[in-house]
Amino acid sequence: MMSPTADSNGSVAAGKPTPGRLASVYSEVQKSRLEVSLPLPSVLKSSFHVVDGPPSSAAGNPVILLVALCKDYLQDRTKGSTLYGFKGGPAGIMKCTYVELTTDFVYPYRNQGGFDMICSGRDKIETPEQFKQAEETASKLNLDGLVVIGGDDSNTNACLLAENFRGKNMKTSVIGCPKTIDGDLKCKEVPTSFGFDTACKIYAEMIGNVMTDARSTGKYYHFVRLMGRAASHITLECALQTHPNITIIGEEVAARKQTLKSVTDYITDIICKRAELGYNYGVILIPEGLIDFIPEVQQLIAELNEILAHDVVDEDGQWKKKLRSQSHQLFELLPQAIQEQLLLERDPHGNVQVAKIETEKMLIQMVETEVEKRRQEGTYDQQFKGQSHFFGYEGRCGLPSNFDANYCYALGYAAGALLQFGKTGLISSVGNLGAPVEDWTVGGTALTSLMDVERRHGKFKPVIKKAMVELDGAPFKKFASMREDWALKNRYFSPGPVQFVGPTANDINHTLTLELGARA
Amino acid sequence: MMSPTADSNGSVAAGKPTPGRLASVYSEVQKSRLEVSLPLPSVLKSSFHVVDGPPSSAAGNPVILLVALCKDYLQDRTKGSTLYGFKGGPAGIMKCTYVELTTDFVYPYRNQGGFDMICSGRDKIETPEQFKQAEETASKLNLDGLVVIGGDDSNTNACLLAENFRGKNMKTSVIGCPKTIDGDLKCKEVPTSFGFDTACKIYAEMIGNVMTDARSTGKYYHFVRLMGRAASHITLECALQTHPNITIIGEEVAARKQTLKSVTDYITDIICKRAELGYNYGVILIPEGLIDFIPEVQQLIAELNEILAHDVVDEDGQWKKKLRSQSHQLFELLPQAIQEQLLLERDPHGNVQVAKIETEKMLIQMVETEVEKRRQEGTYDQQFKGQSHFFGYEGRCGLPSNFDANYCYALGYAAGALLQFGKTGLISSVGNLGAPVEDWTVGGTALTSLMDVERRHGKFKPVIKKAMVELDGAPFKKFASMREDWALKNRYFSPGPVQFVGPTANDINHTLTLELGARA
Repeated sequence: MMSPTADSNGSVAAGKPTPGRLASVYSEVQKSRLEVSLPLPSVLKSSFHVVDGPPSSAAGNPVILLVALCKDYLQDRTKGSTLYGFKGGPAGIMKCTYVELTTDFVYPYRNQGGFDMICSGRDKIETPEQFKQAEETASKLNLDGLVVIGGDDSNTNACLLAENFRGKNMKTSVIGCPKTIDGDLKCKEVPTSFGFDTACKIYAEMIGNVMTDARSTGKYYHFVRLMGRAASHITLECALQTHPNITIIGEEVAARKQTLKSVTDYITDIICKRAELGYNYGVILIPEGLIDFIPEVQQLIAELNEILAHDVVDEDGQWKKKLRSQSHQLFELLPQAIQEQLLLERDPHGNVQVAKIETEKMLIQMVETEVEKRRQEGTYDQQFKGQSHFFGYEGRCGLPSNFDANYCYALGYAAGALLQFGKTGLISSVGNLGAPVEDWTVGGTALTSLMDVERRHGKFKPVIKKAMVELDGAPFKKFASMREDWALKNRYFSPGPVQFVGPTANDINHTLTLELGARA
Repeated sequence: MMSPTADSNGSVAAGKPTPGRLASVYSEVQKSRLEVSLPLPSVLKSSFHVVDGPPSSAAGNPVILLVALCKDYLQDRTKGSTLYGFKGGPAGIMKCTYVELTTDFVYPYRNQGGFDMICSGRDKIETPEQFKQAEETASKLNLDGLVVIGGDDSNTNACLLAENFRGKNMKTSVIGCPKTIDGDLKCKEVPTSFGFDTACKIYAEMIGNVMTDARSTGKYYHFVRLMGRAASHITLECALQTHPNITIIGEEVAARKQTLKSVTDYITDIICKRAELGYNYGVILIPEGLIDFIPEVQQLIAELNEILAHDVVDEDGQWKKKLRSQSHQLFELLPQAIQEQLLLERDPHGNVQVAKIETEKMLIQMVETEVEKRRQEGTYDQQFKGQSHFFGYEGRCGLPSNFDANYCYALGYAAGALLQFGKTGLISSVGNLGAPVEDWTVGGTALTSLMDVERRHGKFKPVIKKAMVELDGAPFKKFASMREDWALKNRYFSPGPVQFVGPTANDINHTLTLELGARA
């Protein structure tokens, strides 16, 4: 018996259509997607066996390659076995809440993303009690294997579960699959995570539309904050797809040790130059995690947390004297609304809620102040009007792009094969993604090779390292070579809505294309 | 010579492709749209002439029908004439800033929306000086006709300009075309405005995605505010397309004389009932103009404007005694952030900026307060987490849906024909939209028949009346018959991204379909 967790669906063998059943709950586009047969890499279509390959670039288990062995074996491999889905991911494993994934149950989720099939959760399996619960579930259901689908946290779970089951001599193998729109789970053997391609295409459609609107009305600067947690991959990819006037990449801000003031000045300088060219409009992309990349902001927040925990915040502002000089200056620079947000909105532990800060609105207000200053000084005489946007949840659950559907299908198929051959502690790995699907390579990579040790809550913990935007990587270098041109000349590029048929339906994103090209 | 204003493009005759020219600035989806030949109503494909038809339902000029006359005439009708585009719409007419719309100039905007071709503007032509400027432009360029493309304000401009030119015995005819995403410019002869179909499909895609996300993560109520100015057509259409748990329709709130408290209670009641069924998530649609439909809010704002203009707002809140009792109660009911927004953010005239109030966030906070109250009373023991969204600008400039492209093309073609026959003061009217394009009817309707007299700034002015959501209309009745089912059972419907080819590519929106059905 094998069990996927989280929001798997592409990994499940093809089901039979049940005509009419979905007529009233599915849109026509959804229904048309249900009926699509996805291509498989040739290595999985014909007979194959699993062999241990050369050692991976990182330490740990060797990479495993799937090669031709036995066609019948593949066709028959799930015969008689039962597939369970654990509800809400890790929580389902620990509480043993699951649903049997029959062909009929799975069918409506084919090529739909399927994020809502068994739903998702952010629980971690960390304590001895939690591992014990997982063991009990695996024993009770007599699991041969477990497929964990998710980002860095989920695959950390997968790695620790695999080690744990192996340590207890349990038969349950564990295989991870890379799923996150953030694009921050990747390495040489796992070139991308599924979801990233779809989310970026949805956001890029919206950004392209806003660009046309900006040019038509000619009076707004659109500040678009994009989802993506810590890393700026989504923002970078959307920039490559749409050519905005200004794009802030968090990793660059950190590397250059930029301040909030210097980011504001950078934006304002371009706005002023554009005004000279007659453009009082534009589009600016900002990564969700920006604020975390600015060292002085982190320092201010640490000091605020300390002060708010122990002192009274008096109306006269005497409390500000407790801030260090640089933090005090920064606090005074912030717009009033942000100051209040920092002081008033706290999480249950009393800490400032950084994630709640609407960076796009904060930057609009800071640019307004800077523009007004320049107006007073006589160096700027145009208007400035900002419009704020946050593009987030609407990109996480779209119908998968053809690339994501194909990639996910291959990943899931590979995960099944790895389990079948008794492999454990691996992440499903599909490579050569720049080639046609039939030429994709398929294998598994040791999850331990992705692990790093991080200090969290005062303890050292093994976790999967987030892949950040590399400033010497091909995607950033491409962007950096274009951005000055995009800043002053309007090179807006509008990808339009995701299409499932037609010449461009199988295009893959720029980030992956450039990274594959740089590697080739 | 004929001249369109605003963002026309579909109304211009087909241009020749200039291969390669757009290779670097256009996405593949855009390029594929460029090459599409749009169908025309049969009446426009063959020979036709223009005849005065039976009197329209409203007073004013009779409806004009286009019928077969002379094919050659149609083909040759723009030979030797020049087409100008006035930049920024009315401003371009008044300032005589224009561009010649050659075949090559227009080509890249074919089937793209073209909102950025000559750009748009919100200026009004009202004063004698402004009419004089328009006359000078018409004379200087020797205009035979002028096509005005836009919503109620633009078509009011068109009507007044037509009357003015006619009054001065000028030869320039004026024809209007209905363009607004808001869907509030319509009547029997003009069943919809172009842009509405595309915008609603884009928003519905995003709402469908958020629904899948809501169900997957199971922990958020998504409050989605939708663009659409005063009327709630977009919100109603998106509800019909996606089946959200709760939808607020401004016109119903006004008709029922609801208060902010009763809207909050309505939402909270459903949230509580859903919690009993195990659902701590959901999707709620809110029209942009909601706040304008609540009488008590209007009253509070009027009083605040008066007080803020003349009195000091003291910290102790003594100023609140100047509010009437009901307004005082409402003010105290508002979340602190909204109270501050009302007091602090004013427009250049010192008035409270109602449009800046983020209604979706206000409602989240009010529901939070109500939920907390019920928790204290012991009638509710679940969590409530709101996520706010505003879907606006990203829906205004998308690639047009096939329906919008076809409709716009027929409207523009009709406008050209009406001008050719010397007709003036009409709005281009294409009907029978539920039938295949070849069977659409084509004509013009007197703009005066859409006019009403409104009191603005203390004066009576003739303006085109906004078409609001009718509570006894077919779209609202359909919604009202379904909403209780949608509230408690999750009937989420995900339309997916707009497709340009395939079986559903030519579908039209529910509002139009239901209105046509009710009329048939």
